[in-house]
Amino acid sequence: MEQGSSLVKIANKKTALVTGGAGFIGSHLIDSLLAEGATVVCLDSLLTGREKNLRHLQREARFDLIQADIIDALPRTVARTAFTHVYNLACAASPPHYQADPEHTMLTNVVGTRNLLRLAEEKKARFLLTSTSEVYGDPEVHPQPESYRGWVSCTGPRACYDEGKRAAETLTFDYQRMRRADVRVARIFNTYGPRMRPDDGRVVSNVICQALAGDDITVYGDGSQTRSFCYVSDLVAGLMRLMDSDVTDGPVNLGNPVELTVSDLVERVVRMTGSTSRIVNRPLPVDDPRRRKPNIERAKALLGWEPRVALQQGLEATAAWFAEEQAEARPAEREAREELMVEVAAE
Amino acid sequence: MEQGSSLVKIANKKTALVTGGAGFIGSHLIDSLLAEGATVVCLDSLLTGREKNLRHLQREARFDLIQADIIDALPRTVARTAFTHVYNLACAASPPHYQADPEHTMLTNVVGTRNLLRLAEEKKARFLLTSTSEVYGDPEVHPQPESYRGWVSCTGPRACYDEGKRAAETLTFDYQRMRRADVRVARIFNTYGPRMRPDDGRVVSNVICQALAGDDITVYGDGSQTRSFCYVSDLVAGLMRLMDSDVTDGPVNLGNPVELTVSDLVERVVRMTGSTSRIVNRPLPVDDPRRRKPNIERAKALLGWEPRVALQQGLEATAAWFAEEQAEARPAEREAREELMVEVAAE
Repeated sequence: MEQGSSLVKIANKKTALVTGGAGFIGSHLIDSLLAEGATVVCLDSLLTGREKNLRHLQREARFDLIQADIIDALPRTVARTAFTHVYNLACAASPPHYQADPEHTMLTNVVGTRNLLRLAEEKKARFLLTSTSEVYGDPEVHPQPESYRGWVSCTGPRACYDEGKRAAETLTFDYQRMRRADVRVARIFNTYGPRMRPDDGRVVSNVICQALAGDDITVYGDGSQTRSFCYVSDLVAGLMRLMDSDVTDGPVNLGNPVELTVSDLVERVVRMTGSTSRIVNRPLPVDDPRRRKPNIERAKALLGWEPRVALQQGLEATAAWFAEEQAEARPAEREAREELMVEVAAE
Repeated sequence: MEQGSSLVKIANKKTALVTGGAGFIGSHLIDSLLAEGATVVCLDSLLTGREKNLRHLQREARFDLIQADIIDALPRTVARTAFTHVYNLACAASPPHYQADPEHTMLTNVVGTRNLLRLAEEKKARFLLTSTSEVYGDPEVHPQPESYRGWVSCTGPRACYDEGKRAAETLTFDYQRMRRADVRVARIFNTYGPRMRPDDGRVVSNVICQALAGDDITVYGDGSQTRSFCYVSDLVAGLMRLMDSDVTDGPVNLGNPVELTVSDLVERVVRMTGSTSRIVNRPLPVDDPRRRKPNIERAKALLGWEPRVALQQGLEATAAWFAEEQAEARPAEREAREELMVEVAAE
């Protein structure tokens, strides 16, 4: 299921900018674009994205990584490149990360998206915004079609992300309405897979990491809230199809409609990993959605897209990747612990 | 009902920045602040605000007008002044104006509000954001309490304003949560009164101006959509009370809950002005709200505020003001027409 391994080395005429390309989804998208023959420039502030997600591309001639924040004026190299496609994936996406600096989260979505729309306008490049199921807030309609206007608190602690993305959609469709850019908008539902951050704070990575480490598994609320999880390769395939499509008249949901409760997920992971972890319940965070499930009829009809990877298969691949990560990290961790003990002893 | 006429000339310790102060509501707020003894600096881009709204203050020592856009770095004079209060009223508020440059509308609300929040943080000044009933979109709940999360399309042509204001609220409450500023947020419902622009494009000014000129009166849709109109002096009294209050834990609706249909309004104005205008129906604009009426229980309970000016009284004052405006404008108009005819004759 790793896509970087089978790069087709025939260059095509696509020159893509991927912002947030060092992140979980962004790095998989870059693999797919390179496999397709595109030239790719990745722009990432590396605030939550990680260079190691792109380490395997160090010697790839058609790839470049630039560290920069899309809030600022775009680097000269970017301004000079004749991009044909701009993918905007730049924004911390997990609550603990995006709530750490809510002002920065809002501006990343608004000012950052505006900067990239202007670039797309100047280059006459296609523009794709990765929006989010968070624009639906805590939905009252189930599953959520694109026409559902959402149930979002614009004053709460999740608003910097939810309202930021809503505002980014607004700007994007305003550019479309004014014929300033040729745009696509994906609303991404929960996605999981290799290269998630272990400290991402979201349920799949949390549960797998805790189960593998034998730590207590945290369940917020009673675990009866539902989620629908899409494996990252399916999601990236959807993004590629959307960019190549002519669907410019509104956002498209991309996600897996198979719904399960958080408790079901925990049970599966515990069984799969043979973990001996205890389950610990903690209070539900403010504005945490109770249910979230995409209606993907639009993606099916207009893109001929639907997810293919079964949950069991995806979870196994993800758990295997996290297990490898933890094994790699262990010597470094042990060293750090030993150093700490030396320091403590010296005091 | 004109408030500028009775200025109390005893200076108090309030030094207020009013952005958008050359606008309809802003200029009345400045009159009230000056009457209370405050020193006031008005910042206005004059894109929709008009200098003539402040002409009567030309010789007022406690008043200053600076032309600047809050999107840009704040002028040095502003950065140097020890403001105690910041009122952010800067943003085009009528659909034809805010839709003319949707990107600018969004950035006025997001980047502009952020710039003013930073100023308030630096000066340890109280900050008041004038938000809008538009954050409720086309509401499904009637009347709308502050807890209602709204029914807003984030991709439609009104979104630059609606989502812009929602994002401005988000930023404001994030500053509050992080203890970076001491904030107040008012959600303003339809307001009317002297100093509205005749080309404002909203129903009260449209209908009065058309009735006075004997032009056809445009009614969008069948006229059965309802609005609730608050006279500007009531609204300004509410803003003053809110700023002086300790209500920092959420937005407060300010508006008049007396609801009437657009057709009712037209009939009243026609009767009042003795107009012979015909009524012409036009299609309803996209996303136009069908009903809008504030629940003001929060303002009543926490601010002891409610509107006092009856609709008939407010409409008469407004119509009288517009009649005077049209009389003033007439000689200039005639000259312009005559010039045009000379030009045409010369061709």
